[in-house]
Amino acid sequence: MTEKPDEFELISRFFRPLATTSGALGLADDAAVLDPGPGQWIVVTTDILVAGVHFPVDEDPGLVAARLIAVNLSDLAAMGAEPWVYMLSLALPEDWDVPWIEGFAKGLKREQDAFAIQLAGGDTVVTPGPLTATLTAFGRTEKGRELKRSGAKAGDDIYVSGTIGDSALGLKVLKGEIPGLQPGPADALLERYHRPQPRVQLGLGLRELGPESGPGAVHGVIDISDGLVADLGHVARASGCAATIEAAKVPFSDAARDAFRLDPQLRELAVTGGDDYELLFTASPSDAGRIGKLARKLGLPLTAIGQMGDKSSGDTVKVLDPDGNEWALKQGGYRHF
Amino acid sequence: MTEKPDEFELISRFFRPLATTSGALGLADDAAVLDPGPGQWIVVTTDILVAGVHFPVDEDPGLVAARLIAVNLSDLAAMGAEPWVYMLSLALPEDWDVPWIEGFAKGLKREQDAFAIQLAGGDTVVTPGPLTATLTAFGRTEKGRELKRSGAKAGDDIYVSGTIGDSALGLKVLKGEIPGLQPGPADALLERYHRPQPRVQLGLGLRELGPESGPGAVHGVIDISDGLVADLGHVARASGCAATIEAAKVPFSDAARDAFRLDPQLRELAVTGGDDYELLFTASPSDAGRIGKLARKLGLPLTAIGQMGDKSSGDTVKVLDPDGNEWALKQGGYRHF
Repeated sequence: MTEKPDEFELISRFFRPLATTSGALGLADDAAVLDPGPGQWIVVTTDILVAGVHFPVDEDPGLVAARLIAVNLSDLAAMGAEPWVYMLSLALPEDWDVPWIEGFAKGLKREQDAFAIQLAGGDTVVTPGPLTATLTAFGRTEKGRELKRSGAKAGDDIYVSGTIGDSALGLKVLKGEIPGLQPGPADALLERYHRPQPRVQLGLGLRELGPESGPGAVHGVIDISDGLVADLGHVARASGCAATIEAAKVPFSDAARDAFRLDPQLRELAVTGGDDYELLFTASPSDAGRIGKLARKLGLPLTAIGQMGDKSSGDTVKVLDPDGNEWALKQGGYRHF
Repeated sequence: MTEKPDEFELISRFFRPLATTSGALGLADDAAVLDPGPGQWIVVTTDILVAGVHFPVDEDPGLVAARLIAVNLSDLAAMGAEPWVYMLSLALPEDWDVPWIEGFAKGLKREQDAFAIQLAGGDTVVTPGPLTATLTAFGRTEKGRELKRSGAKAGDDIYVSGTIGDSALGLKVLKGEIPGLQPGPADALLERYHRPQPRVQLGLGLRELGPESGPGAVHGVIDISDGLVADLGHVARASGCAATIEAAKVPFSDAARDAFRLDPQLRELAVTGGDDYELLFTASPSDAGRIGKLARKLGLPLTAIGQMGDKSSGDTVKVLDPDGNEWALKQGGYRHF
C-alpha cells in the first residue's frame, strides 16, 4: 500500500469538515436524513464532470470544485430554487494525490460559503479512468412556485442575463486560438471560463415576480449551458413556440467585442458556444418595467433580445443580423456526445 | 458522427419511459421537482459503480442495473426508509452501444417495478475511461423515525438477516476459484453475487419495531456491504461499544457450507467478504420475541450471532471459534481503495 489515506481517512480529513449540517450525520451513516421543512418542495439536479472532457486534466482543483458546484446551482437557479445541500461522488484516478484533494476541498468550502450550501453525503472510489466528479444538488422552493422551461407564449419578449459568449471565447483564449487579443480582455474572458457564476439570486428574483401578476409572469426559464441558440431552442420546443432573436441586441462584453474585431467569425461562436450559465427567460412586454426594476436591484443586466412567435412561423430559432436578414448558423450548440 | 443516438435521443428513447413520476417533468427541464409530502423527511444515499472495478466489464447490463439499484436501496433499508425516486448519472465509454443501454434500461425498469421507485433525473456524458454509473437514491421516512448505526448498547444482541458470505463466495465461483463445487451450490452462490437483494421490507419492519417499546428498540443498524466483521466494527465504533460474535452462530447457506467443506479457509472469507446486502442490527435481549415475530412475518431468518459489550473489553470486534477461542482474522473487510 501507498501512504495515501484510505477512504475512511479521506472522508474524515477532507469531507467531514464540509458536512456540518445535522442531516449529514457526520458522513458516518449509510445515508443523509434531510428535513425540507413544511410546505417545501425539493428541486434536484445532477451533473457529471470528467477530467479531459469537461475541464483540462491539469486544471486547478479549486476551479474544478467551483465549476462542479456552479453547473449544478445554475440548474437550480433556472428553476427558481434556493440552494440547500449536495451529494458528492468522486471517482479518483489511480494516481490521485493528497494536494489535489486538499485544493478541491478548499474550493468546495469557498463555494459552500458563497452559496450557503453544505455537503450531505457521497461516495468515493478509485477508477482506472480519468477523474470523474458527479454532484447532485438539492434546492428548495415553496410548493408549486418552481420556474419551468415551458410556458413561453407567442408575443413574449426573450431576455438574457449578463453577457453572452464570454466563456466559449475564454476557452478559445485558453487554447491560444485568439492571437492578438490584449492581456486585459483575454484575462476577462478566461475568468468567465474558469469561474462560471450561477445566477442564483436572479432565479429567486424571477420566482418572486411570478405571483404578483399571477402565475406565469416569467416563464420559459432555462440556464444557458448548451449555448444561447440551442437553449432557446429547448425553451421554444418545450413551449410549442418559435423564437426570433436579433444579433445586434445580444449583450456582449467589451472583451468579447475586442475579440470580434480581431475575428468576426467569433460572433457566431459567442451565440452558439456553451457554458455561459446566464439565465434566459421570457415575459410579456407589459412586465418590462418590473424586469428592469429587478435588474437594477440585482445590479445585473437583463436584456431583451427578441420575441417568441407562433410555431408555424418557420425555424424553431431564427437569428436576425443587423439588416434584418436571417443569419445562417453553421453550428447549433454544444453536442453532449 | 456515428449513427448512435445523441444525448437527447438517448434520454427520450430509453430513460424518459422510466421517469413517469410527475416531478421528473418528463426529464425535459433543468431539475426534478419533488414533493416529499407533509411530515416526511428525505433519506438520501449515493453509490458509484465502475466497470472493471465493481463489476466485470462484460457483465450483463441488466445485472449492472440491478446491482446499482440494490447497493443504494440497501443503504436506504439500513436507515428504515421507504424507497421513493432516484437520479442516475452515466459516464459511458466511447464504444458504448445501443444494445447495452437497452439491456440496462430494461434492468432498471424491472427494479423500479420491484421496489416501486422511479427515475427523477440525471446526466449522461461520454468518458475516455470505463463505464461509470452513479446513482443517488431518495427514500422517505416519518420525521425522526430513521434508523442509525449508533445507539447500540452493551448487552444488546447482534442480529443479521438472511445468510452471510454467499456473495463473496459467488465472486470466487465466478473467478473459478472454488474447484470441485457442484453446479447446484455454485449457481446458488453466483446468483447471490449477481443479484443482491436489498432488505427494504426488513428496514421498514425494524423501523416499526421502534416506537412501540420506545425509541431505540432496534439500534445500531447497518447494511453489510464491506463484510460482516468490518460493518459490525462501524456499528461498534459509532456506538462507543465493542462487539463479540460466535462463528458457530453466523447463518450460512447450504451452498456456502458445501464450499467450506471443500476449503475450510473460505469460512473466513464469508465473514469478512463484502456485498452481502443483509442488514445487521442490535436489540435488547428482551425484544427477542418481537424480532422473531418479524422474521416469521417476512419469511426471512433474523439470527442472533453475538453480543455488544463495553468498549474497554479489548478489540472492537472479536470473533470466537466453536471452542470459545478468539479467531485471528487475516483480513478486516473490503478496502475501498
